[in-house]
Amino acid sequence: MKIGAYGEVMLRLTPPEYRLLEQTHSLRMDYTGTGVNILGNLAHFGLDTWLLTNVPDNRLGDAAIVNLRKFGLKTDFVGKYHNHIGSYFAEVGFGSRPTYVTYQNRHNSSFGISTVTNYLIKEFLETVDLIHICGISLSLTDATWETACALAQQAKQLGKKVCFDFNFRPSLNTEAGKKALMKARYEAILPYCDLVFGTSRDLLELLEIPKEANEDNVRYIQRFLAHYEVEWFAGTQRTTMSEKPYISGRIITKNAHYETEPKLLTVLDRIGAGDAYAAGILLGYAEKWSLEKTAEFATTNAVVAHTLSGDVPLTTRAQIQQIMDYPGLDLIR
Amino acid sequence: MKIGAYGEVMLRLTPPEYRLLEQTHSLRMDYTGTGVNILGNLAHFGLDTWLLTNVPDNRLGDAAIVNLRKFGLKTDFVGKYHNHIGSYFAEVGFGSRPTYVTYQNRHNSSFGISTVTNYLIKEFLETVDLIHICGISLSLTDATWETACALAQQAKQLGKKVCFDFNFRPSLNTEAGKKALMKARYEAILPYCDLVFGTSRDLLELLEIPKEANEDNVRYIQRFLAHYEVEWFAGTQRTTMSEKPYISGRIITKNAHYETEPKLLTVLDRIGAGDAYAAGILLGYAEKWSLEKTAEFATTNAVVAHTLSGDVPLTTRAQIQQIMDYPGLDLIR
Amino acid sequence: MKIGAYGEVMLRLTPPEYRLLEQTHSLRMDYTGTGVNILGNLAHFGLDTWLLTNVPDNRLGDAAIVNLRKFGLKTDFVGKYHNHIGSYFAEVGFGSRPTYVTYQNRHNSSFGISTVTNYLIKEFLETVDLIHICGISLSLTDATWETACALAQQAKQLGKKVCFDFNFRPSLNTEAGKKALMKARYEAILPYCDLVFGTSRDLLELLEIPKEANEDNVRYIQRFLAHYEVEWFAGTQRTTMSEKPYISGRIITKNAHYETEPKLLTVLDRIGAGDAYAAGILLGYAEKWSLEKTAEFATTNAVVAHTLSGDVPLTTRAQIQQIMDYPGLDLIR
Amino acid sequence: MKIGAYGEVMLRLTPPEYRLLEQTHSLRMDYTGTGVNILGNLAHFGLDTWLLTNVPDNRLGDAAIVNLRKFGLKTDFVGKYHNHIGSYFAEVGFGSRPTYVTYQNRHNSSFGISTVTNYLIKEFLETVDLIHICGISLSLTDATWETACALAQQAKQLGKKVCFDFNFRPSLNTEAGKKALMKARYEAILPYCDLVFGTSRDLLELLEIPKEANEDNVRYIQRFLAHYEVEWFAGTQRTTMSEKPYISGRIITKNAHYETEPKLLTVLDRIGAGDAYAAGILLGYAEKWSLEKTAEFATTNAVVAHTLSGDVPLTTRAQIQQIMDYPGLDLIR
Amino acid sequence: MKIGAYGEVMLRLTPPEYRLLEQTHSLRMDYTGTGVNILGNLAHFGLDTWLLTNVPDNRLGDAAIVNLRKFGLKTDFVGKYHNHIGSYFAEVGFGSRPTYVTYQNRHNSSFGISTVTNYLIKEFLETVDLIHICGISLSLTDATWETACALAQQAKQLGKKVCFDFNFRPSLNTEAGKKALMKARYEAILPYCDLVFGTSRDLLELLEIPKEANEDNVRYIQRFLAHYEVEWFAGTQRTTMSEKPYISGRIITKNAHYETEPKLLTVLDRIGAGDAYAAGILLGYAEKWSLEKTAEFATTNAVVAHTLSGDVPLTTRAQIQQIMDYPGLDLIR
Amino acid sequence: MKIGAYGEVMLRLTPPEYRLLEQTHSLRMDYTGTGVNILGNLAHFGLDTWLLTNVPDNRLGDAAIVNLRKFGLKTDFVGKYHNHIGSYFAEVGFGSRPTYVTYQNRHNSSFGISTVTNYLIKEFLETVDLIHICGISLSLTDATWETACALAQQAKQLGKKVCFDFNFRPSLNTEAGKKALMKARYEAILPYCDLVFGTSRDLLELLEIPKEANEDNVRYIQRFLAHYEVEWFAGTQRTTMSEKPYISGRIITKNAHYETEPKLLTVLDRIGAGDAYAAGILLGYAEKWSLEKTAEFATTNAVVAHTLSGDVPLTTRAQIQQIMDYPGLDLIR
Repeated sequence: MKIGAYGEVMLRLTPPEYRLLEQTHSLRMDYTGTGVNILGNLAHFGLDTWLLTNVPDNRLGDAAIVNLRKFGLKTDFVGKYHNHIGSYFAEVGFGSRPTYVTYQNRHNSSFGISTVTNYLIKEFLETVDLIHICGISLSLTDATWETACALAQQAKQLGKKVCFDFNFRPSLNTEAGKKALMKARYEAILPYCDLVFGTSRDLLELLEIPKEANEDNVRYIQRFLAHYEVEWFAGTQRTTMSEKPYISGRIITKNAHYETEPKLLTVLDRIGAGDAYAAGILLGYAEKWSLEKTAEFATTNAVVAHTLSGDVPLTTRAQIQQIMDYPGLDLIR
Repeated sequence: MKIGAYGEVMLRLTPPEYRLLEQTHSLRMDYTGTGVNILGNLAHFGLDTWLLTNVPDNRLGDAAIVNLRKFGLKTDFVGKYHNHIGSYFAEVGFGSRPTYVTYQNRHNSSFGISTVTNYLIKEFLETVDLIHICGISLSLTDATWETACALAQQAKQLGKKVCFDFNFRPSLNTEAGKKALMKARYEAILPYCDLVFGTSRDLLELLEIPKEANEDNVRYIQRFLAHYEVEWFAGTQRTTMSEKPYISGRIITKNAHYETEPKLLTVLDRIGAGDAYAAGILLGYAEKWSLEKTAEFATTNAVVAHTLSGDVPLTTRAQIQQIMDYPGLDLIR
Repeated sequence: MKIGAYGEVMLRLTPPEYRLLEQTHSLRMDYTGTGVNILGNLAHFGLDTWLLTNVPDNRLGDAAIVNLRKFGLKTDFVGKYHNHIGSYFAEVGFGSRPTYVTYQNRHNSSFGISTVTNYLIKEFLETVDLIHICGISLSLTDATWETACALAQQAKQLGKKVCFDFNFRPSLNTEAGKKALMKARYEAILPYCDLVFGTSRDLLELLEIPKEANEDNVRYIQRFLAHYEVEWFAGTQRTTMSEKPYISGRIITKNAHYETEPKLLTVLDRIGAGDAYAAGILLGYAEKWSLEKTAEFATTNAVVAHTLSGDVPLTTRAQIQQIMDYPGLDLIR
Repeated sequence: MKIGAYGEVMLRLTPPEYRLLEQTHSLRMDYTGTGVNILGNLAHFGLDTWLLTNVPDNRLGDAAIVNLRKFGLKTDFVGKYHNHIGSYFAEVGFGSRPTYVTYQNRHNSSFGISTVTNYLIKEFLETVDLIHICGISLSLTDATWETACALAQQAKQLGKKVCFDFNFRPSLNTEAGKKALMKARYEAILPYCDLVFGTSRDLLELLEIPKEANEDNVRYIQRFLAHYEVEWFAGTQRTTMSEKPYISGRIITKNAHYETEPKLLTVLDRIGAGDAYAAGILLGYAEKWSLEKTAEFATTNAVVAHTLSGDVPLTTRAQIQQIMDYPGLDLIR
Repeated sequence: MKIGAYGEVMLRLTPPEYRLLEQTHSLRMDYTGTGVNILGNLAHFGLDTWLLTNVPDNRLGDAAIVNLRKFGLKTDFVGKYHNHIGSYFAEVGFGSRPTYVTYQNRHNSSFGISTVTNYLIKEFLETVDLIHICGISLSLTDATWETACALAQQAKQLGKKVCFDFNFRPSLNTEAGKKALMKARYEAILPYCDLVFGTSRDLLELLEIPKEANEDNVRYIQRFLAHYEVEWFAGTQRTTMSEKPYISGRIITKNAHYETEPKLLTVLDRIGAGDAYAAGILLGYAEKWSLEKTAEFATTNAVVAHTLSGDVPLTTRAQIQQIMDYPGLDLIR
Repeated sequence: MKIGAYGEVMLRLTPPEYRLLEQTHSLRMDYTGTGVNILGNLAHFGLDTWLLTNVPDNRLGDAAIVNLRKFGLKTDFVGKYHNHIGSYFAEVGFGSRPTYVTYQNRHNSSFGISTVTNYLIKEFLETVDLIHICGISLSLTDATWETACALAQQAKQLGKKVCFDFNFRPSLNTEAGKKALMKARYEAILPYCDLVFGTSRDLLELLEIPKEANEDNVRYIQRFLAHYEVEWFAGTQRTTMSEKPYISGRIITKNAHYETEPKLLTVLDRIGAGDAYAAGILLGYAEKWSLEKTAEFATTNAVVAHTLSGDVPLTTRAQIQQIMDYPGLDLIR
């Protein structure tokens, strides 16, 4: 299965060795973004992947493309337009000190101002079998919303699969009317979607789908799946036991569901771990694995992504399989 | 409240990535010292702070001042004198391997050889409302002892508050007669002090104040407070539970006391954490917070200081408040 | 003389060791800008300097202020507003390979969108004796043009000196009507100016002041000075002899002028060297030096700025004097 | 024109900042090789390029492929075989101190032990229009000689162009009989070649083609071209004037020739500069430029390659054109 | 007691900050090998130690010797021969992600191709009192096997002690006939050995010594000791409790044995920890400590080695003693 | 010939990439000192060398010894005493900007406070054939003066050669009476010396030996040699031609002299170049080379030392010979 994604390429700038911005003159530079992360991981799993995006038409855009190629992404649909790339600074946390992410101007980025006419949407859709769209596109700018919507619609028409990630952050949508607008946009795109990443909170708080009395979460989500004719609904859950963090993953279909045991997390860099879970799910979906096999693989992949620095999960199938088969193995020669 | 401190500026030289001195050609250079750490943290809390010290009259002294300004300290009373700055090398520990600190010649430093006549003591005291003096000054050289003593006396006369940190290390005072000399100097300065950082062991072993039968620590310390007319006595305590380290903080006044629950420590760099506690206490004192609010804030500040590399705690009020309000939060966008 | 400047604080991000963006994962981060550079240098010369600007109201803005303090600037008039800081990436050249500068979105920066009402203009002008304004402000956004203009006018009313740097780049003003608009803005601000940095090309090509037959450059510029009642007109000139670069500096007043001999350049990092020349000129003006002394000092300062990495010229008076007195001296112990 | 190359991928390991191996714990890691360098440069010029090679079937081979993709090479014909990659350590020289290159075991590398049957030669040749073969393949191992020879023959049969680089180093072929063997191999491959990189010394000392009395170099080489029916013979020459190094480039055809003026060299890292010249020549040949345009471009490209660290010349057409059009320009914004 | 070892010097190349090979341009370079590690540690314990090995006769070999001297090894018997050094790349793991070690061509290394005639075996044996031989030498090449065997025999004849480490890795000996060959070689060398490092698995799976019914491990090993007249049999065991790793060490003699309590491991870099245990055992043996004292010291040394980056355990006696005496101490000034 | 030296081991701390102290958080750490530099270089030339010195009795002293061993010095006479090591910070210059060296407290260093009784002088002198003493020892402290003097005397008695370097810096001896004291000390030690490094200025200004009318420098120095029965007098001279620096070296004996042509300098790091010249001279003296061969080798060695970063010249005989034989060669494979 050939996988495409529509998403922003961002610069991530990170002080070394857990330092704060005011403690460093040196930054690590990486290229990232939800689409980049998922496709980069899938390329490491051996799939062919294409990103649909625009980067600046200058030396930063050139450098971005160099780095996308490095991840194994195909860059045929990475255009060059305008002159700004969104960026964020990550002051990596330690112990009780959280990681601080400071965003720099994403609205005016080459991606943020690019709309339907700036992309080869038809050619892109003809190339791939499944596309991934991130909910961020619905709230970033009108241009990205229009592009996301057009993509979903046309993909559906062409018989391509659409995978959509809610990724809704209430705290970023507190302006008057913003949440209502978002609700409308999410409702507009969902009918075209086949896989959805999200939580029951998204359904309850954003879509405001009322929960029935005594309805458990699985049943509640299955009602949503039936309504929008979505095949898979996937997500992860974090818990804390004895002051240590754990993660579990689950997949729900209209009439089945599977949830993994909680797995212990050791965290080097948690950004990008959600995308690792998504990549694992897409791999299982693409290769028609069982829910169990898919959820176990995707969750282990997310666990390992927490141990990698940088956002793009550079795991391979063999590596994840080995970690699942030999837990505790700490040296491979 | 305007805060001043009298203390040494030192160079800290640290091998990167937990390496030993013999494993590295590269060192991280930072400027530190108890006064620097406390004032730097208070400046990050929004207070105006002044350091009274002398640095070398050469390019190292210039670089020191540049870095003090960076922390937000006001450098009006940082003089330039002589040509040596005290330094220490920190080989940062990991797990069971302790951090090794190797000091380089503090007695002959610009600070160590500066005495009363080398400072603008009167102008300094007129500028601030409270001064912090570290017990190290009492043992470093005669010049620093004389300066510390003069400062405490004159501050008292001018109605300024004096905060004093015992910071007594028996292992550094084993020469014949040294401990008796130290006892005399501590006894001489305590009558001028309003806040004191220390432990009951300081009272017992250094001051040799006998403990009454069945007297608990709080009562014992309160007797000391009454004797010297000290307002607040503050300190922290470390414990180990299930092979994991915890810290708790407490404040004792003549007729009240508060102690926090033990808080779990995850340690990136423990040097400077005591100063973070002191800065938290001084903030609460300056703003007339309750003992509880002050101790909780100061202890959380000390916990977070363990997760920051370098000595100067660069925490802000908002950050500490957020960590207290949302424990476990590990990513802030 | 107390010096103020109105100008942007930018992030400069530089690959190490002459590498290209596509060759590095590591960037050096510095804070810079014409105003920052000139004031930072003047602060190193011992003058009190204040910057009028706005930085983002987030952790990047905090880090920016930390770094401004480090340079010795006073940050009383550095406000926090909005959430974006302009940045540029510098791929440092070597030999025949030029340095490439790639700008990132300056129009939407905290500085670019701040206008008269976002600053304490009156308080700022009351604090300083002379202000520096860079021509970039006239073309960046309408908001910065309005601020620059208001500053110049009000400074004049209050009897403060105004120093203005043409800094006009024809290549950045090629849109239809842009050059005419710029000409009008430059003509509008010049009546308030006392010192001007520029070249005869600025007068000829931007202001379109016709040159008389056989009129030499000095006389031509003196006509301009008379017209706008400008005291000093200063600038540098680069030449190449035997494939080696040289620089000379000159100052022209209504009835005098001085030009230095060409001085050999060895270039480590040429960005910021123009600001070093400006800082030298302002020092001489502030201290009422002769044209000769001022031009020699400023040009030597520019030469040394080429040998410093980063934009802010961190030279001191003693250092420049020593280099002027002992040319060829290469080791000072 | 689609370009292919057959050549080794090597690891280059370089101490930073001109240090020696015994002065460093840190190495810069780059992937290089004549084929990699030429194709990487041509990819930056916008051509489609394919490398035919084998890398180790382990994590080092994976990392090699990641880096080849980064340069813009297509890796369809990069196989994974065996487990060793050739490497070299470069202690970069400065002034009178030469660069020292220390090779590590190239004979047993995945490339060195791969022969005709380990490659998809037919598919590779069907994909490209021209192939580049480096003379090193003739002396490295029997396996690489056989592969090079088979490639040249089959390319000729398929009507593809063959470009061959003498790259003969007498000092590496001093074993008894080695030079005679090399002569035979060079003579065997030359009949299939259309472009040749070399010098008259190669003809004289390796091929032992006698020079006629009073025959100048150009005429001598043209006799060689006529004999082997080679179209272009290209090379560079280094000279020293007033203790400064210069380079000139030339192209000779059966009945024409062009040589550039000597161009001044400023050297940051000279390894790879010969490959930059070759890439420039191939670009001109592929696009049917005049000898003059090609030689000027290729020589400027070689000059700029000396100013880039690392072996792969990452220059673009626009960059080289700009440097040719505006010599002396040192800052581009 | 003077200690010698016969073993390979290898280059270890490590990406910084837990990065993968594809995430870095920078590598840490260290020199290592079982013999190097053990002797380097013993030299830090104050013993005189000599390595018998060959390094390349080029600048890499020079750099290797420089680094051996640094560890305190005596290099009188480090020869220079041929031109290749074995190397390995270590991608350091974190949490559930294992460390990946990728070896580069050890068979053709200067060490791998050196045999009896390439060493001054007699002089070496006359210099030392005990030699250490690693089982890797038995499987690496025929040349190293012959050297190891000759060393053991001649040492025995000269009355020197022989210490042998099984270090048998089944996964590296899966070729047909390889295991039988290994068994024969191990059986051939064991009669000359006085101390052996290994596990009961080595006896059972490699030597195929049948275990008697109800025979416990200690008794089983004691039979082996009696058979081969070996004095000490030493090894470590790893266990996991509550998802945390522990290590214990033991020594068995013909009629006694001692095993430590499990000690908690915190792991920075686990490579080399086995060599730290061996060094501790050899120290105790050399100084005739009790089994208990030796095992406790060696196991603590292994625990601390896990907290040091790099392979060579740079611990001192005082440091290990202090950690044993004051567990939990985390800062030493 | 076995060479010894008496001299201080210092820490050199250097900001990277030509940065100033106020521009960096990172320092390069190296161990250096005149004796270290000369002996390290001679060890690289293949001679056995011993340093007589004391380093701190702490982890810094341990690290110092590790690094001395690395240079190839024998450390049998490196004692551990007290707890301070002298250090200096080097801000490396570029072009017209000089290198700034800032010393930190050498008087109280382990070396500065060690005197005759703290060393094994007799054993040291019995081990070596020639000792090197630096003039710095005469002015540093009374303890170092006494040690230097005792060494020279006893060496003479034992028939060992004494090499003495004037290294007199008038600017460091401006205190009242200091110069007269120095003159007396130099006069006291010279009778024991066989080789002397210095200039005619030392004779004229420090020793105040009057120059006769029309006496040229060579003759003047030869009078000095005759007076003190010194064999060789050696030194270098720097000149500037066409804005480029050159160096020439010379040796004078009682009845002969040789001076090299000026050699062009390209400077990466000039500290330590004088010691490289001295090492070259000592090599020629030890091996009884001609004055010409010695001076040419020593001067080339000094030229190459300018191209090495760090103080210790790590050149080998083969390398210097190759550079003398093939000037202009810039790449060695």
